[in-house]
Amino acid sequence: MKYDVIVVGCGVAGMTAAIYLKRSGLSCMILEGKMPGGQVVENDKIENYPGFVSISGSDLALSILKQVKEQGIPICYEMVEEVTKDKKVRTAKKEYQANYIILATGRKPRMLGLESEEKYRNKGISYCAVCDGSLYKKKDVVVVGGGDSALEMVLYLSPLVKHLTLLHRRDTYRAKDTTIEKIKNLKNVSFVTGEVKEFTGEDQLNGILLKDGKKLSCEGAFLGIGQIPNTSFLSSLGILDEEGYIKVDKDYETAINGIYAIGDCLKKEYYQIVIAMGEAASCALTIRRCFDE
Amino acid sequence: MKYDVIVVGCGVAGMTAAIYLKRSGLSCMILEGKMPGGQVVENDKIENYPGFVSISGSDLALSILKQVKEQGIPICYEMVEEVTKDKKVRTAKKEYQANYIILATGRKPRMLGLESEEKYRNKGISYCAVCDGSLYKKKDVVVVGGGDSALEMVLYLSPLVKHLTLLHRRDTYRAKDTTIEKIKNLKNVSFVTGEVKEFTGEDQLNGILLKDGKKLSCEGAFLGIGQIPNTSFLSSLGILDEEGYIKVDKDYETAINGIYAIGDCLKKEYYQIVIAMGEAASCALTIRRCFDE
Repeated sequence: MKYDVIVVGCGVAGMTAAIYLKRSGLSCMILEGKMPGGQVVENDKIENYPGFVSISGSDLALSILKQVKEQGIPICYEMVEEVTKDKKVRTAKKEYQANYIILATGRKPRMLGLESEEKYRNKGISYCAVCDGSLYKKKDVVVVGGGDSALEMVLYLSPLVKHLTLLHRRDTYRAKDTTIEKIKNLKNVSFVTGEVKEFTGEDQLNGILLKDGKKLSCEGAFLGIGQIPNTSFLSSLGILDEEGYIKVDKDYETAINGIYAIGDCLKKEYYQIVIAMGEAASCALTIRRCFDE
Repeated sequence: MKYDVIVVGCGVAGMTAAIYLKRSGLSCMILEGKMPGGQVVENDKIENYPGFVSISGSDLALSILKQVKEQGIPICYEMVEEVTKDKKVRTAKKEYQANYIILATGRKPRMLGLESEEKYRNKGISYCAVCDGSLYKKKDVVVVGGGDSALEMVLYLSPLVKHLTLLHRRDTYRAKDTTIEKIKNLKNVSFVTGEVKEFTGEDQLNGILLKDGKKLSCEGAFLGIGQIPNTSFLSSLGILDEEGYIKVDKDYETAINGIYAIGDCLKKEYYQIVIAMGEAASCALTIRRCFDE
């Protein structure tokens, strides 16, 4: 069977696109290599998704999944290994053919890789300042990292929290000079050079032990050491930028005709659920218009 | 009291922006001249808002309103009469001052103004093909209008419905030649010249009586006779286009520094809830960054 559209990735962007596609009368399917929901399921508590005062990421993902199923959209849990220019999608098991492809593969935070990092995730450790910052109002937090994303976290968090420590393994920062300048002027921010040995606490995080033996006490740790777009299987297509994000035009189309990309696998200013969904709706409606030709 | 940001309009865009602003640590308030929710409350049944298989517009609006209240964001129900370049907002009762203003005033569909139109709204009469099209799969529908928006409705609905009649008072159309050409080639579309006298039916719409006495039988009628942005009170600011939509740059800022606009009061390709919300989140986070300067 040839689908009108194959959506690669069953996160919130992919699911939203599929709902719009199916409702518009197109046939579509979703391919997902892991579990539905994508990055959103890593959040224990989402308070900025309109319609829910507070909802866990898993519950939100499952609600949308229910909607996808209600529409009769097939989801195949197969890891995509290759996408070709002629709109074939190859998994370990099978090859699928479509007229259009939407890549919605998301990204994942780069992790330090410590056991204690997994333990305190959502119990003090966060990878998104905008998502979780308001949970740490007037508390002491640490931001780990020294690049643009860490420094943007500092700018966002500093007015919310009591005191913020920027922990970086070097004493220089890989970020815009203007950003560094702003950070240095913030009154409640201090700077520590060092590396995380272990996150400590009881049920909740209460501190960070550094490799040099020092200890930082904090209720929240924001890890801003980078994000990795889930796009390595696309490298031969020539549609990735140097960081691995998919390059698209204003209609979310890549340089390859008929292959689109949406959501967090794109490089953009803000990574938020509603922003990814807005891209999904636009992209789906644009593809639908192509069928009028 | 001077607010960091005043949001004008308590529809889904305005409420989403306020949630993001408040959570980021800024002070904000919402001004609304009528009821919270905006246009979304006119929809009986929304099936493409992620997270709800099916929800009424009123329920969705009230859920988001609950979230706004939970955040402690004040809403004043006062009709805004004037917004000034120095970020004052004047209502009949009071004058408010802010550092930034977000205009999220939405738009409303132009209506024929018939009593029977009100009666069958959401009972066969719709103003949005993308929202409601899938309710009329394999049914007979009429699209009323002859401009771009009516013809876009025809393109969207034709593959979904059994038969579509385009009803227009003239036999010429004010739309792109390419669009008109596409419409004329659609196999399940016929063209009728005439004007609506009355919508007929029992509980649900079942037909349209024309002024010349003819009758069109249909289960759905989509009115595509235009939309009116709620922006007339802004006319002296010089930020409106010829149709009354607010002009903004890629950051949703108008030509007046510190005055932003989001949602359906902007001219754009697609008017969808998640798209308006995505704009709201981006705009709020951009304004928040201005406070880092």
